[in-house]
Amino acid sequence: MLERSKISFMNLALQEAKKAITLGEVPVGAVLVLKGDVIARAHNLVEQENDPTAHAEMVVIREGSRKLGTPRLPECDLYVTLEPCPMCAQALSFARIRQVIFGAYDPKGGGIDHGPHIYAHKTAMHKPAVIGGIEETKCKELLKTFFQSLRVP
Amino acid sequence: MLERSKISFMNLALQEAKKAITLGEVPVGAVLVLKGDVIARAHNLVEQENDPTAHAEMVVIREGSRKLGTPRLPECDLYVTLEPCPMCAQALSFARIRQVIFGAYDPKGGGIDHGPHIYAHKTAMHKPAVIGGIEETKCKELLKTFFQSLRVP
Repeated sequence: MLERSKISFMNLALQEAKKAITLGEVPVGAVLVLKGDVIARAHNLVEQENDPTAHAEMVVIREGSRKLGTPRLPECDLYVTLEPCPMCAQALSFARIRQVIFGAYDPKGGGIDHGPHIYAHKTAMHKPAVIGGIEETKCKELLKTFFQSLRVP
Repeated sequence: MLERSKISFMNLALQEAKKAITLGEVPVGAVLVLKGDVIARAHNLVEQENDPTAHAEMVVIREGSRKLGTPRLPECDLYVTLEPCPMCAQALSFARIRQVIFGAYDPKGGGIDHGPHIYAHKTAMHKPAVIGGIEETKCKELLKTFFQSLRVP
């Protein structure tokens, strides 16, 4: 199989994010890719599973690790529709993720290019390569629409 | 039941940490306390469960949340033998933990008093109260002995 493009993987992550909306979860989706194949896909499940740690990124790396039988995934790339928060950014470092590709930037909650800048510290012993802004408009619009809908009585 | 003291809860967390040693896991233990009762206890399970996110703190808040049927635990205190890393520090903020009490300080991996100082940023919308250094010597010695044993051929 030809390796799908970054845009194509981000669109799969967007499909996951859309599933979250129907459950009333903040629409963030992620896919984990190993050598061109998607090995896990997930969306935010915090409310559904009563789990404050169940962000899309956490759910996919936990599933990917379980599938591959190791807590370290140095050949995997993670696609996510929103800039990872500090919790997820650190978890992706622990998981030795090779590359993090995200859609929308998150000035309020992001932990890579914002806030504590997780990968700028020695506590991140492994620093994944990072690409932001892939399918940014689509990812941003999805979140914007969701939060606007919450404000409507 | 009388509320047990902080030292007593930290000693329960230390018991958890000791269980991790027998499994070859880095010895960190945690307990989650609601109104004087321990509602969850756990130790590091990263290698056992092939889960890069399975730090003691993450395991207890996930278990506590599941038990209480909510991802938010504003009346719970978390005791852990080592200063939480950035991932765990942020997760404790998401979980709205009231107070974090830790044993040993962690200059290399800690995320509260070291590294990215998670609670110093606006990305931590809820900032738990923090007390460090409870039963510090015992907590530190346990980790020191474990890491020294790894160096012996």
